Amino acid sequence: MTEPTTVQNDDVVVFLAGGNGRASAPLVPVPQSDAAVNVADLAVTRGDGVFESIGVVGGRLIELPRHLARLAHSAELLELPPPDLAAFEAAAHTALAAHAPAPELLVKLFHSRGVETPAHTIDGPTGWVQVLEGADHTAARRDGVRVVLLDRGYRSDIAQTAPWLLQGAKTLSYALNKAALREAARRDADDVVFVSTDGVLLEGPTANVVVRHGDVFRTPRTDLGILAGTTQAAFFDTVRAQGLTAEEAVLTPDDLTTADAAWLCSSGRLLAPIRSLDGAPLPVDAHFTAHVLTQAFGLPT
Amino acid sequence: MTEPTTVQNDDVVVFLAGGNGRASAPLVPVPQSDAAVNVADLAVTRGDGVFESIGVVGGRLIELPRHLARLAHSAELLELPPPDLAAFEAAAHTALAAHAPAPELLVKLFHSRGVETPAHTIDGPTGWVQVLEGADHTAARRDGVRVVLLDRGYRSDIAQTAPWLLQGAKTLSYALNKAALREAARRDADDVVFVSTDGVLLEGPTANVVVRHGDVFRTPRTDLGILAGTTQAAFFDTVRAQGLTAEEAVLTPDDLTTADAAWLCSSGRLLAPIRSLDGAPLPVDAHFTAHVLTQAFGLPT
Repeated sequence: MTEPTTVQNDDVVVFLAGGNGRASAPLVPVPQSDAAVNVADLAVTRGDGVFESIGVVGGRLIELPRHLARLAHSAELLELPPPDLAAFEAAAHTALAAHAPAPELLVKLFHSRGVETPAHTIDGPTGWVQVLEGADHTAARRDGVRVVLLDRGYRSDIAQTAPWLLQGAKTLSYALNKAALREAARRDADDVVFVSTDGVLLEGPTANVVVRHGDVFRTPRTDLGILAGTTQAAFFDTVRAQGLTAEEAVLTPDDLTTADAAWLCSSGRLLAPIRSLDGAPLPVDAHFTAHVLTQAFGLPT
Repeated sequence: MTEPTTVQNDDVVVFLAGGNGRASAPLVPVPQSDAAVNVADLAVTRGDGVFESIGVVGGRLIELPRHLARLAHSAELLELPPPDLAAFEAAAHTALAAHAPAPELLVKLFHSRGVETPAHTIDGPTGWVQVLEGADHTAARRDGVRVVLLDRGYRSDIAQTAPWLLQGAKTLSYALNKAALREAARRDADDVVFVSTDGVLLEGPTANVVVRHGDVFRTPRTDLGILAGTTQAAFFDTVRAQGLTAEEAVLTPDDLTTADAAWLCSSGRLLAPIRSLDGAPLPVDAHFTAHVLTQAFGLPT
């Protein structure tokens, strides 16, 4: 007898072996509604872990190696035990195979420090993979999103001067990113681009920024305390393959307002044109966006 | 038949009724090792919730009303549904009664936004109480702790200018506080006091700061983007009852280096004298500290 390998009417979770933070058997796909972590897991009590969200189009995991590399890098910044990347990859495929098929899915990898025991030791790490159906991004990809600039409160050199602030790590301590999106909604916008206190363009709460001026595409440098974009990297690969220029740079809000086109890049939504900034319209290149979505990510035209 | 009300050889968890993030029955004390939250709870995936840690000395919850008020305030800053404070109080007493007695315990209250369902709705909030045995703080209370100053990266007016950064809320997004403590250990110290980019003394990762100059006790103002200290407030009550002066102020690192005595105040450790700052010794008033620990918190002499 083997375990059932398809989960009906629910998202799917697979726990990695090792660590004992899990409340479900490892390596076996379980419905999300049955998948739980111990209340004393540091993911729960301190947001003390790292994660990745990977887009899946037509069953294919997009930019998996870049996501695995980033998970390992985030873990290093938090001084977590190194994640077992082969185990995460295997669990991702197991979970994906157990999920009801869909044109697009999202695979999330979670790697927490583990469970704080009553004896004040840490039993960990805890690792798991979740496969879920993302929201419908059709409108955002086609029509674009309304963006506001918000102060991130930090200087652009913060990752070098104060590494304990963990800028550049994708941690489970994400409450402020959700708060920034609520602030955007209050301002009648869909999304946010953060700006440093010294006036440098950074990133969105869950996305990287790309601006186009003529044949030159630019994105903020990753030494500015931001995440290295995986979707942005795939976008740049496609741009370069067309003989256009793509580079990292120090950008300011002026580079957004003067852009011929600008995008937010993220794993679920992939590319969303920025169609307004603080209420002022920005040009949207719908044709080019659709072209890249097909070329780089395999979305149907 | 009633449920067993004492848990053996483990810490204790009680889930509140309502919300369905819990994997255990509500209102019934369960061993921590059996208490789990759903993997899709936003406490797990985003650190999107708030908490309180309450000291318990001789069975008495210290400063419970101030902790409940702060939980509600933190929830407001995160735009969470208001926590049911009466339910939290009842659950705290239930959990405490079920824990094996100890001279000191710690009661933690957790209030998360809830579980993100496959349909992208939120089923919540999720609330629970955990009772645990804290670490042994005898040496820290008596001999003091070695503290380093670390840059918090923010200006001291950040709570007013950028409320979406959630400064002043006690959120489950605590990874950077743990990272700061690791940085302290690297510098051969026990704890941290954060300083703003404009040179203002803020708070520790899990504690408030109090400095004494003669008969005047001061702590950083809560409009500086820091938590209102519950232990510090009880300390100040005791100080004022003795006819001494206790006040909120804008302090700088110089106020620490010139202090006649200084303390970190937190719910588990209560008062820890600061015995050195960035390696330079500070005076420790062991007699006065012991006096306040007894007067304000009921610790045996």
